[in-house]
Amino acid sequence: MARVHNFSAGPSAMPLAVLEKAQSEMLDLAGSGMSVMELSHRSREFQAIIDGAESGIRRLLGVSEDYAVLFLQGGASLQFAMIPLNLRRPGKSADYVDTGSWASKAVKEAKLTGAAKVLWSGKADNYSRIPRAEELKCSPDAEYLHICSNETIGGIRWTRFPETKIPLIADMSSEIFSRPVDVNKFGLIYAGAQKNLGPSGLAVVIIRKDLMGRISGSLPVFLRYSTHAESGSLYNTPNTWAIYMVKLVCEWVESGGGVAAFEKKSAEKAALLYNLIDESEFWRSPVEKESRSVMNVVWRLSREDLEDGFIKQAKEAGFIGLKGHRSVGGIRASIYNAVTLESVEALVAFMKDFERKNG
Amino acid sequence: MARVHNFSAGPSAMPLAVLEKAQSEMLDLAGSGMSVMELSHRSREFQAIIDGAESGIRRLLGVSEDYAVLFLQGGASLQFAMIPLNLRRPGKSADYVDTGSWASKAVKEAKLTGAAKVLWSGKADNYSRIPRAEELKCSPDAEYLHICSNETIGGIRWTRFPETKIPLIADMSSEIFSRPVDVNKFGLIYAGAQKNLGPSGLAVVIIRKDLMGRISGSLPVFLRYSTHAESGSLYNTPNTWAIYMVKLVCEWVESGGGVAAFEKKSAEKAALLYNLIDESEFWRSPVEKESRSVMNVVWRLSREDLEDGFIKQAKEAGFIGLKGHRSVGGIRASIYNAVTLESVEALVAFMKDFERKNG
Repeated sequence: MARVHNFSAGPSAMPLAVLEKAQSEMLDLAGSGMSVMELSHRSREFQAIIDGAESGIRRLLGVSEDYAVLFLQGGASLQFAMIPLNLRRPGKSADYVDTGSWASKAVKEAKLTGAAKVLWSGKADNYSRIPRAEELKCSPDAEYLHICSNETIGGIRWTRFPETKIPLIADMSSEIFSRPVDVNKFGLIYAGAQKNLGPSGLAVVIIRKDLMGRISGSLPVFLRYSTHAESGSLYNTPNTWAIYMVKLVCEWVESGGGVAAFEKKSAEKAALLYNLIDESEFWRSPVEKESRSVMNVVWRLSREDLEDGFIKQAKEAGFIGLKGHRSVGGIRASIYNAVTLESVEALVAFMKDFERKNG
Repeated sequence: MARVHNFSAGPSAMPLAVLEKAQSEMLDLAGSGMSVMELSHRSREFQAIIDGAESGIRRLLGVSEDYAVLFLQGGASLQFAMIPLNLRRPGKSADYVDTGSWASKAVKEAKLTGAAKVLWSGKADNYSRIPRAEELKCSPDAEYLHICSNETIGGIRWTRFPETKIPLIADMSSEIFSRPVDVNKFGLIYAGAQKNLGPSGLAVVIIRKDLMGRISGSLPVFLRYSTHAESGSLYNTPNTWAIYMVKLVCEWVESGGGVAAFEKKSAEKAALLYNLIDESEFWRSPVEKESRSVMNVVWRLSREDLEDGFIKQAKEAGFIGLKGHRSVGGIRASIYNAVTLESVEALVAFMKDFERKNG
């Protein structure tokens, strides 16, 4: 069996050690005589798993008891709808920053069910940068400020987060666990699991408990954060398999030194690619330097007619998922926590070779 | 490794052959060099998987092209909210039949967002039967009639479905694939996957396409059936692992003779238990005979003080998940498709032995 170098944007590479552990326990979890998928979500065995996933997230991100950690379904896309439905009270508005495709999807859902204002948009600049602090001014009637902390498609990220008086809400789907975060500066953090946390079909929501006081009793029960907080994410059957995988990923991140260690590894991996791109005229970065993502590195070939060939030859050489998102084209390497330094080094060597042959 | 006899209500037993296949492909799906969890949901490999799951469901249930088959997240519980939001237009109502815990949860969500009427309730009879046809009369302003075709907790099921002029909607979570169904008699069928279809974290929705004409443009995009129908369930990242498992389960059901063959197997398994319960005064069924579920067999011991001991000794002997739902108590054996005849025979032998010792 030859494992490929997987640079997909999500679902994406998972730690081999986690996959091997899940494989070994597939028919019999810890002597239970059952697969984790066969366990009742009300069983003691599963309670230990969900507790383990929650405590892992709390330890790795330093989440205090002022916050609830929820395991929900529907990915970040359902959160785009749930956030305004839960946290924007009648007659109030919400502020959004439009840094790319994901942020603008969040705006779209917010506008469907009430008032929402886009404070700043990078659309005219092809989403090539994050705004400076002085470019943002929250609205007087805004219930929260929503940002996407890392844009998977544009390859940009907030290096520093805005200081706000209203609760700051961040979609961290494509960068959670890639750097330490001061959770206390946020009202709500959410992340689809399928990049740095585990498989798809799960969203992790970290919500300041007092914000749940805003939730209307006329909202569908299932769409209320309070429903899931009060039941320990067991109001209905959760995605038990994905929660189990998140627990294993948390253990793997901790054994690798925690989030701070992965921040260093990410910086090292990203530098290998950005240095190569900056050194030669053959490659070109469309992203402002200060806004560059360390999870999703996007670039172009100066000769764009060579891009299809690059992607094709890379795939033949075992490098998967390098095609830029269909909305922007170009090349993208997603280098999440599970992508090894060796994979990035191999990609860099391949790129140098391609440049030699085509430069 | 000793696998247990798993009678859990859901998540529940899965076919061993399916688990073994998933285990063998865990690190490398069909020579891709990736786990199925690592595949992009936009990849050709994953498209083949979701196409396979959809065509499997279509073949097994005879679903025509008049219907869309959707793979959604949030389980049946999100459907309780989505159905009225999508299919009950302003100023209109919806009819519900309250046959138990699940049906009444659906009612609760429907009433939160508009008008809904309960045509019939079995609550006063402890949900021990399904209504007769003559007990149901749809309301003139009802947009649909909602039923739960099998109640997991009460252990009752609709043997025949009501004839309606308005669309009939059925929650088939705990019995889908257990008997042939004339899909054309329904407007919408939905099922959480975690009983007869696969792991938790996925709901399958089979919806008559013309009904999507009712959907309001002011509903959050993510909550519209049309959003998911138009994108082949790939509007956002779906639960790729669960869809893969559903595909494997479909192949397993087909190799076992299809739904009609499993209907026979279920009847045989259920008869073993019901015959024993009916034969002796030691056991007692709280359910009307004509309404008995063949998926969830519930019973009591005439001496209820023996029930805890029965459950405890059964567990020690390798029979898992026999405790009745906390809301009703008693004993429950869920005998979904993946529960083997051998497991049921072993349980019956254990029951006879318990009766001999305690009768």
